[in-house]
Amino acid sequence: MITLYDSRLSGNGWKVRLLLSHLGIPYTRQVLNVAAGEQKNPEFLKLNPLARVPVLLLEDGTAISESNAILFYLAQGTPFLPSGRADAARVMQWLFFEQFDHARFLARPRFLVAIAKQEEKFKDEIEYLRQIGQKALAALEAQLARTPFVTGNQYTIADTSLYPYTSMAEMGGYQLAAYPAVCAWLERVRSQPGFIPLFVE
Amino acid sequence: MITLYDSRLSGNGWKVRLLLSHLGIPYTRQVLNVAAGEQKNPEFLKLNPLARVPVLLLEDGTAISESNAILFYLAQGTPFLPSGRADAARVMQWLFFEQFDHARFLARPRFLVAIAKQEEKFKDEIEYLRQIGQKALAALEAQLARTPFVTGNQYTIADTSLYPYTSMAEMGGYQLAAYPAVCAWLERVRSQPGFIPLFVE
Repeated sequence: MITLYDSRLSGNGWKVRLLLSHLGIPYTRQVLNVAAGEQKNPEFLKLNPLARVPVLLLEDGTAISESNAILFYLAQGTPFLPSGRADAARVMQWLFFEQFDHARFLARPRFLVAIAKQEEKFKDEIEYLRQIGQKALAALEAQLARTPFVTGNQYTIADTSLYPYTSMAEMGGYQLAAYPAVCAWLERVRSQPGFIPLFVE
Repeated sequence: MITLYDSRLSGNGWKVRLLLSHLGIPYTRQVLNVAAGEQKNPEFLKLNPLARVPVLLLEDGTAISESNAILFYLAQGTPFLPSGRADAARVMQWLFFEQFDHARFLARPRFLVAIAKQEEKFKDEIEYLRQIGQKALAALEAQLARTPFVTGNQYTIADTSLYPYTSMAEMGGYQLAAYPAVCAWLERVRSQPGFIPLFVE
C-alpha cells in the first residue's frame, strides 16, 4: 500500500488526501508533528531533504514530494488530468500558477496569523505576501467568472490544488467576499464526490 | 508554425527557447517590449490575462502560458520528459520546486538590482527574497552534489527550467562560488547540444 506523509494542518497534504479520496485509492497516512520538528528527523529527510510534507511513498520505495507533483502522479490516466496534450498543459499551467503566485502567499499568512499567532511580529511580511496573494485571488476570480472550474467545465487537479489554501485564506486575513466567483467555486468543489474536509476525525 | 511570445530579458522565455532549440522545433518569436508595457495590450491579454511572457500560441489558436507548462507541453514524448509515471513525477517535482522556491526569489532581485537599478529603494524586499533564494540554491547544491543533472543522470526539462535564473543569480547579488556543484552543473548544461545563450543576436 502507498503511504502519505502528512501533517494535521497542511493544506498541501489536504490536496493529496482530497485526490486520493476522489479516486478511492487506499493508503496509509503517517501524520508528522511539524510543530515538534518531526519533518527534520533523519529518516524523513531521506524521503524529502527539503523537510516538508506531503511525501508519497510508493510500494517500491520511490518517494515523491511537492504536492502538485504527487497530484500529477496520481491523476495520470484518470479524468482528473485530461489526456490531450494541450488540455493537460492547461491543467499544468494552473498548477504552476498555484505554486508561483498563490500557495505561499495564502499559506504563510494563514500560518503566521492563525497558527503561530504572530501577526504583529510579522506584519510587514504578511502585508507583502498579501499584496501578491490578492493578485492571485483576482486572477482566479477572473477565470472562475468565465468557467465553473479552473480549466473549464470539468473538475481537475487544478481545482484540487487551488482549493485548500483558497478555502482557508480568511485565516490569513483575506476577505473572500470580494471574490464572489471564487466563493461559488469553493461550494462547487465541496460538492464533488469524495470531497473531504481538512479534519476527518 | 507555433509562435512564442517572449521578451528580450525574460529568463522564463529563455527556458522555452532553450527547449525549442534542443528539440530543433521551428517557431516564430514575437518579442514584447515589457518596459513599454506591451504585455498589457488587449490583444496579448487575450492570450494571457496575467500579462506576462512567455506564451506559446499553437497553430489551432490554443495559448499556453506559464513557462514550465510550456516545457511540459513541448517535452511530452521526448527524452526531455521521461515516460515512466514515477520518473515523470520526479521531473515535475523539480519544476514545482522551481516555481515555489526558486524562480521569483532569484528573478526579482536580478530585475531590481541589474535591470531596474533600484537596489537601494527595494533593499528590504531584496533581502527577504534572498533569504528564500539561498535556501533554494542550497537545496539544488545538495542534489547536484549527488547527481550530474537535477533528476539523475539525464538532462531533462527540470534542468532547462532551473538553468536560466540560476545562471543569472549573481545579477541579483547571489554568490554562486558558494555552490560548487551548481557551478559545475551550469557548465554541464551549457555543453548540451542545442544550448543557446540569452541573447542570440
